[in-house]
Amino acid sequence: MVLADELAKQQRSISVAEFFEKNKHLLGFDSPTRGVITTIKEAVDNALDACEEAQVLPDIFISIKKVSNDIFRIIVEDNGPGIVPAQVPFVFGKLLYGSRFHQIRQTRGQQGIGISAAVLYAQLTSGVPTIVISRTGAKESAYKCEIQIKIETNEPDIISQQPFEWDRIHGTRVQIEFKSTMSAKKKLLEYLKYTSIVNPHARFRVELDDEAFTFERVSQEVITCPLAVKPHPHGIEFGQLKRMVAASNQKLADFLMENFSRVGKKTAQEICDKCGLKATVKVSGLSADHLKAVLAAMQDVSVPAPLTTQCLSPIGEELIRRGLDKEFQMDFVTARTRPASVFSGHSFVVEAAIGYGGKLPPEGNAIILRFANRVPLMYQQGACAITTCISNVNWKLYNISQQGLPTGPILILVHVASTNVPFTSESKDAIASIPEIEKEVVLALQDLGRDLKLFVSRRDKNKVAEDRARAVCAIIPEIAAKVSEIVEKPLVDTTPIEGKLMRKLIAKKWTRNGKVTIELSNYTGQEGEIAVYDISSDNAVDALPKPDFVSEMDNQFTKVWKASVPPQTSWRVSYTGKGGGLLDIRGIDDNKKMVVDLDV
Amino acid sequence: MVLADELAKQQRSISVAEFFEKNKHLLGFDSPTRGVITTIKEAVDNALDACEEAQVLPDIFISIKKVSNDIFRIIVEDNGPGIVPAQVPFVFGKLLYGSRFHQIRQTRGQQGIGISAAVLYAQLTSGVPTIVISRTGAKESAYKCEIQIKIETNEPDIISQQPFEWDRIHGTRVQIEFKSTMSAKKKLLEYLKYTSIVNPHARFRVELDDEAFTFERVSQEVITCPLAVKPHPHGIEFGQLKRMVAASNQKLADFLMENFSRVGKKTAQEICDKCGLKATVKVSGLSADHLKAVLAAMQDVSVPAPLTTQCLSPIGEELIRRGLDKEFQMDFVTARTRPASVFSGHSFVVEAAIGYGGKLPPEGNAIILRFANRVPLMYQQGACAITTCISNVNWKLYNISQQGLPTGPILILVHVASTNVPFTSESKDAIASIPEIEKEVVLALQDLGRDLKLFVSRRDKNKVAEDRARAVCAIIPEIAAKVSEIVEKPLVDTTPIEGKLMRKLIAKKWTRNGKVTIELSNYTGQEGEIAVYDISSDNAVDALPKPDFVSEMDNQFTKVWKASVPPQTSWRVSYTGKGGGLLDIRGIDDNKKMVVDLDV
Repeated sequence: MVLADELAKQQRSISVAEFFEKNKHLLGFDSPTRGVITTIKEAVDNALDACEEAQVLPDIFISIKKVSNDIFRIIVEDNGPGIVPAQVPFVFGKLLYGSRFHQIRQTRGQQGIGISAAVLYAQLTSGVPTIVISRTGAKESAYKCEIQIKIETNEPDIISQQPFEWDRIHGTRVQIEFKSTMSAKKKLLEYLKYTSIVNPHARFRVELDDEAFTFERVSQEVITCPLAVKPHPHGIEFGQLKRMVAASNQKLADFLMENFSRVGKKTAQEICDKCGLKATVKVSGLSADHLKAVLAAMQDVSVPAPLTTQCLSPIGEELIRRGLDKEFQMDFVTARTRPASVFSGHSFVVEAAIGYGGKLPPEGNAIILRFANRVPLMYQQGACAITTCISNVNWKLYNISQQGLPTGPILILVHVASTNVPFTSESKDAIASIPEIEKEVVLALQDLGRDLKLFVSRRDKNKVAEDRARAVCAIIPEIAAKVSEIVEKPLVDTTPIEGKLMRKLIAKKWTRNGKVTIELSNYTGQEGEIAVYDISSDNAVDALPKPDFVSEMDNQFTKVWKASVPPQTSWRVSYTGKGGGLLDIRGIDDNKKMVVDLDV
Repeated sequence: MVLADELAKQQRSISVAEFFEKNKHLLGFDSPTRGVITTIKEAVDNALDACEEAQVLPDIFISIKKVSNDIFRIIVEDNGPGIVPAQVPFVFGKLLYGSRFHQIRQTRGQQGIGISAAVLYAQLTSGVPTIVISRTGAKESAYKCEIQIKIETNEPDIISQQPFEWDRIHGTRVQIEFKSTMSAKKKLLEYLKYTSIVNPHARFRVELDDEAFTFERVSQEVITCPLAVKPHPHGIEFGQLKRMVAASNQKLADFLMENFSRVGKKTAQEICDKCGLKATVKVSGLSADHLKAVLAAMQDVSVPAPLTTQCLSPIGEELIRRGLDKEFQMDFVTARTRPASVFSGHSFVVEAAIGYGGKLPPEGNAIILRFANRVPLMYQQGACAITTCISNVNWKLYNISQQGLPTGPILILVHVASTNVPFTSESKDAIASIPEIEKEVVLALQDLGRDLKLFVSRRDKNKVAEDRARAVCAIIPEIAAKVSEIVEKPLVDTTPIEGKLMRKLIAKKWTRNGKVTIELSNYTGQEGEIAVYDISSDNAVDALPKPDFVSEMDNQFTKVWKASVPPQTSWRVSYTGKGGGLLDIRGIDDNKKMVVDLDV
């Protein structure tokens, strides 16, 4: 068959850059708007990660400017630690290059693809090289570098590189120009709003053509940078173990203790015993079958769960609540941080929050905010395991209507923090369906659902009680009239009963024997200062207590008392006069007060 | 800042193999079942592609065998053209290597990742090298090769390589062993069922532990192998043009004509005129600004749409209908192949089909079959643009109930064939949201929706008409009796009226003067051969026409006539006899016939 030889001639190696140039949608460059957001997101991720590593409060400047008909210039500048000149070409001009891929800790960037993908997209669409300026400290000069990527080899192509006068002491500035059709303003502001919810320590300044926006930091505390940990013995696969062993000249027990987290002397000995090997055997001499036995023993012995406090950085219930309160007006909001858990050896923590009512749109699907490692996920909601989990929860159990997603004035936030977030593609927009993660998300949501149900049912119960009380109050005066007729006694004042039933503040005013009395009775259970306005022809000079304020106009005197009336107590003022006029109470909801002027 | 130097030390290049080892879910290896299906799918894709290139009818053998507690051995063997020994290590032992990535034509494999990803997964989980046997023709010896991948460099690691005695003349056999928990039988059979619907020329034999299954080919015609085409001038980006120019020493007009499809002398000259360059200028000397002008001119001039008949291979409406008919019993099925269209310079064709009723489940969501380049998409239905399109169509317009997806006894098939299918990830399970493709899918579905609505409404109308006719028929005999009483004439036979109203086939038998007559009248509007069974004591030796078959038992003679009765015509047979006995009509639905034996 000659054909096989012919086919062989067509076989070629494909560079990663070529691959992603052809499949740029995998990196989040499938539409012009999304390209803008993806680029900014990747640059901001890098900036926040770098500031975290340097323990600096992030101050990030973003600019989008249309430079010609269809070319947009995007600038992202940070005050991070900077990048040494020798590394700049690789960080920006080579796909699959980075510092965070091989570390086991929570970081925003984790693939070594992000920002170089934007460089690739720029050179493909506009042909303009990316400009990077970076400075690593006051004693160092800043450097400016023009970079592209050699597509066939995925190696950096340095167009120019030279020292540069820069007023920043440390930081990095990237300038990327590519073809687009719009500046994606709405989506960008949404992205920054969500980013600042989960990064309260960061400050963002944005210039969009001629408009400027600022997202101020609300916390002055730098986030503790998560520390890298060693792999957990339960999360290791054969191929990895083989490579680790090949790179080691240690004895088995030492190898286990030094290369894996949570393995101490006792556990190491247990593993050796279980696989029938001596603790002192050199790992480099072990055969494949021996290694399989070691691996099986590692899975078999009980090892404490991975340490997560070091390597993960969840946001925390308090900060999530505060972040949401700042951006959304809601009647109710509650958050949960679940205990840490593990999938395929990667630690993760799920956090979730639910908000209800207030200014949320009363109809339609719930608002869903998805986050991974403190980065908002802006696209592909339908493809995300978080969305699937939200749909899979039976919200009707919590008295929430549901059509796939829950509907009504509801907001749901889910944050997955992990040493390795399993995204569905390199564009990092959706979390893949991993059973362990899905389980945790569902548990968090069910927990929040129960809280929400309690809130809504209490609110509803209050409403039912109030309706009943109103019905009773409506007939009390009639009953009283009937009773007074039968027992032939004067009609009693029923307002206190009404006040008690309705949990209101009752203000009464009456005049007897030339003495005017105003009385407040607080049945609301609510504290606070109340202002009593009494407008009549009486000047109330002998009033006790004295009014806080008196004014006169056309022989009508306005007297104002500021009264503090704790729940279940009364307050009273008397003065000589004829009564009548107008009584008003301020400082309390209209539906919580009842003003009864017995003189009128 | 010392920090930048420290951070620089952590920077490292990441090999593609490392990247996908860590992100194996991107390749479809996130669960053990899915790993099995992904591996078989990739191997079968390669086999079908290779057979198509060799113009061979594919004969593919698949085996899954549990070899130990958690290790499964997967074998896929084809009768394709084989792979030359020197290429085997690269095809199987290097990610991003292949013959189809750089070609513009419809192929199943397109990334050069698939099968080597399975090799990677095997060495990670079981540590067992993959065994490949291949032979390229009768004159060549077969070769056997044991392969792994060097993770750090993404280069093949050849464990062994030697000639091998093999009874096949040409073909390839892959044997991969990895850790899994189950053999995924149900999903695999589903995958093969769908694959054979769209590859009617392929034959699959499967051995699953101790069971064997065969999916026979239903067509003996090989599929024409799509031919590679040149890029279309409207689908080119700046970066690509720059690279093409750098590799050429041609004059501008020649360069345009020879490197792009649909560009002839006239169009080339038009482009030159538009960008103000001479047709004879050497492209290698053009500046970036000149190239931008050329690119703009290329977009500006009108060029015929890309040729798609060569490079695409849609299934066709007829074959889709036949494929579905074979696998599903439905009352109605119709298919559409849309005209070819283009996104980002890639040609594509959308095909769709809709089936209704029959043995489809009467409730629940519609059954959705998704295909891309003749490959069934088995996972991530929710993440696929096809699913989104199906949900976005307003099915209520076509009297189909809908809850997101349409519901009821409905099956929807969508096939996207393209020179570059935009998948959402390397696992090739879902199509990304590309507006041009989504538009075509929606148009196809709306078209099919209209057809379905017509069918359902006709069926309903028929039902109403039938109900009415039945009501009328019920009183006809009574009316006839009344009339015959009034006019004092004998009762007439009303069955022909009934037959006409009910659109039935009427079979009547009567005996007069020692002569038996059987008469069929076809009011159904339906053609076809009908069998008349007449069982009585008459031997009917003088019957005209003669019976096609006669048998005798206990003095009862069974006479069978095969009669062709076109609509609105009658057929008749007579013989000497006493009549009586049993008359039966076969070859027509029970509710379409009416047998009246006037002797009984």
